[in-house]
Amino acid sequence: MQPFDLIVHNASEVLTCNGELRGKAEDALAPIPQGAVGISSGRIAWLGTNLPKGAVSGHTQEVDAKGGFVGPGFVDCHTHVVFAGDRSDEFEARCQGKTYLEIAQAGGGIAKTVRATRDATAEELIALALPRLDRLLKHGVTTAEVKSGYGLTVDSELKLLEVVRALGDRQPVSLVGTVLGLHALPPDFSGPREAYVREVIDELLPKVATASLARFCDVFVEQSAFTHDEARACLTAGKTLGVLPRLHVDQLTANGGAQLAAELGAVTADHLEQISPEGIAALKAAGTVAVLAPTSTLFARARPFAPGRALVDAGVPVALCTNVNPGSSNSENVFLAMGLACVECGLSPAEAYLGFTQVGGLALRDESLGRLVEGGPADLVVFAADSYRTLPYHFGMNDVSHVVKSGRLL
Amino acid sequence: MQPFDLIVHNASEVLTCNGELRGKAEDALAPIPQGAVGISSGRIAWLGTNLPKGAVSGHTQEVDAKGGFVGPGFVDCHTHVVFAGDRSDEFEARCQGKTYLEIAQAGGGIAKTVRATRDATAEELIALALPRLDRLLKHGVTTAEVKSGYGLTVDSELKLLEVVRALGDRQPVSLVGTVLGLHALPPDFSGPREAYVREVIDELLPKVATASLARFCDVFVEQSAFTHDEARACLTAGKTLGVLPRLHVDQLTANGGAQLAAELGAVTADHLEQISPEGIAALKAAGTVAVLAPTSTLFARARPFAPGRALVDAGVPVALCTNVNPGSSNSENVFLAMGLACVECGLSPAEAYLGFTQVGGLALRDESLGRLVEGGPADLVVFAADSYRTLPYHFGMNDVSHVVKSGRLL
Repeated sequence: MQPFDLIVHNASEVLTCNGELRGKAEDALAPIPQGAVGISSGRIAWLGTNLPKGAVSGHTQEVDAKGGFVGPGFVDCHTHVVFAGDRSDEFEARCQGKTYLEIAQAGGGIAKTVRATRDATAEELIALALPRLDRLLKHGVTTAEVKSGYGLTVDSELKLLEVVRALGDRQPVSLVGTVLGLHALPPDFSGPREAYVREVIDELLPKVATASLARFCDVFVEQSAFTHDEARACLTAGKTLGVLPRLHVDQLTANGGAQLAAELGAVTADHLEQISPEGIAALKAAGTVAVLAPTSTLFARARPFAPGRALVDAGVPVALCTNVNPGSSNSENVFLAMGLACVECGLSPAEAYLGFTQVGGLALRDESLGRLVEGGPADLVVFAADSYRTLPYHFGMNDVSHVVKSGRLL
Repeated sequence: MQPFDLIVHNASEVLTCNGELRGKAEDALAPIPQGAVGISSGRIAWLGTNLPKGAVSGHTQEVDAKGGFVGPGFVDCHTHVVFAGDRSDEFEARCQGKTYLEIAQAGGGIAKTVRATRDATAEELIALALPRLDRLLKHGVTTAEVKSGYGLTVDSELKLLEVVRALGDRQPVSLVGTVLGLHALPPDFSGPREAYVREVIDELLPKVATASLARFCDVFVEQSAFTHDEARACLTAGKTLGVLPRLHVDQLTANGGAQLAAELGAVTADHLEQISPEGIAALKAAGTVAVLAPTSTLFARARPFAPGRALVDAGVPVALCTNVNPGSSNSENVFLAMGLACVECGLSPAEAYLGFTQVGGLALRDESLGRLVEGGPADLVVFAADSYRTLPYHFGMNDVSHVVKSGRLL
């Protein structure tokens, strides 16, 4: 055999996360006790216990896990890392009792970020996003979804998605673009709201599809944002263009959004703090992945947290995300999201871990992500902890010791 | 003049935290815009805007803050970092609905940590605590209080406090010991509870005082722990020996503990989730510092959070802590505590920052801590953020770029 380019060994276990999701979460982790990983040409060449003969040559790089465990690179399937401006003033106002709505009505909220983001050049946006992506990477994230939605004109939404593409070439985290033209009504749009929705559907989506700038099309369904009918029109148009549907739903108010997501065959339904039992059943029937963002529930002081336990018990695949954004979740802390998913949403540590691995991959409609399989991408994380159970328990703390992306030790 | 050993410059501002606490929190931060710091022989030699002539020689080490802000080293005034064993199994059980009390009754809880800690040698305890202290240091903590309370025999409590002393010599964070013999009734104590309380008062405290192993004596006042009378007897005895009183009170149940703390002239009253308006008034009248541990409220899923806003508004000095411990707050994340203090306890970012600086020093009865003053200890933190407002807003994330302890860049 050819010696491997890189090996990871001395692990307590290697969690492949390649087990069947329908059974016990612990089984889906599909661990290899005392496992090791051999990597060649950016892909996993071998997974097992005893390194095969000839696995190591003088040129093989060795990563000693020192008794820590190894798992797939994390998938953060819902982020908004491309934005300009600062909203720490709003955070301060909210802590002193102002509501999110009062702040929005005073010109803050998404509108503030939209103004700053429109004013920024592509290079400025890249420079602002790079440290955010680096922080995600340091938390073990090797693939992240990134949404537009802070431009809210055809040109500025395209600019954001081009920035996402450029960022993909400038740093190690693989990025998946999502067009979120219907994030909020543009703060300065003078025409009727129908005109903006039509602009997104008739102009933005075709341009995004032609340039392959986004895998997903997303809409924020909320009293203060867009209606079921608007979302339906947008996501249906996107689908026709090959841009897959996903939705922000049932976040601040119960709005039957999960049922809408199911009706539209959305890949994911995100947030879901206010989802009803009927909504849970609809997601299950449609095979839609639930994406929970518990950091934003905490950060925005919204209640309740999403019913993660009920979703898992109903058989809905549950992914987790950081939802990094300047308004409702200014945190790249993957482990805080995992810890909150356990403490506040009732997930077990195994379920929370799957939410950033196998199920994160499902949320991006890419089964090669969030798993370790021979022939698959060599994206993996080594932890300074001997069990995945430590991650949510060591609350909000980062126990990543090494990250390997496409076979390269970072 | 003598050139400085070390200078910190190019800061957005230097927060001295040396302003009057009675007024606005922003004034207590007492910032020096575009400030710089000169350090000689481990102490702050100069604070100002334009470095004096002759400040720098070829031997002067320079720290470029690159536009970040500078503040005092953090004081974490309430921790339990010396322990053995792991309680991630309990965390998992709690997330799936088991209560703290059910876990304790099944032999878990503090009793589990006590067994593991008693079984560990001093060297093992040191090895376990060192990475915890290193994580605190990386979060900007340059002084930490550390409690005993996982031994619960005279000998093992002394062992813990000797470990605290040894740790003080083995790593950079300055440590302040607290004897917490009355943390829980020992799991295997066969005599009447009065006998254990007397053992702590008559044997443990005098030995602790003679060997100067603790600055503070603490008691956990709770239905499941110790009564007002037991705490009064213990803290009064400690006081006579020169060991200052502090208390865990009003945490899980409202128990009039704040009033007890006031009555005993306690330096601090810690937790306070269930404090009453009368308790707040009593702390104010007694000059007792309130110490809030919001991470443990979240981690243990206790509610409500402590009424930080009401305490500050009443004029009570409010300190914050991580309360690192294996049962109710397994996190060294200072910034998570700060963020929660804002979001859940209603503190402003300035008040939260003071809670880990000036007021943290007051909680340890040491006014030289948590402030930057000429002649004072050169313990300081440089941040990769231009304002303290970023710290709680960048939720649960660590923006420390450099830590200087006793004039040494770490």
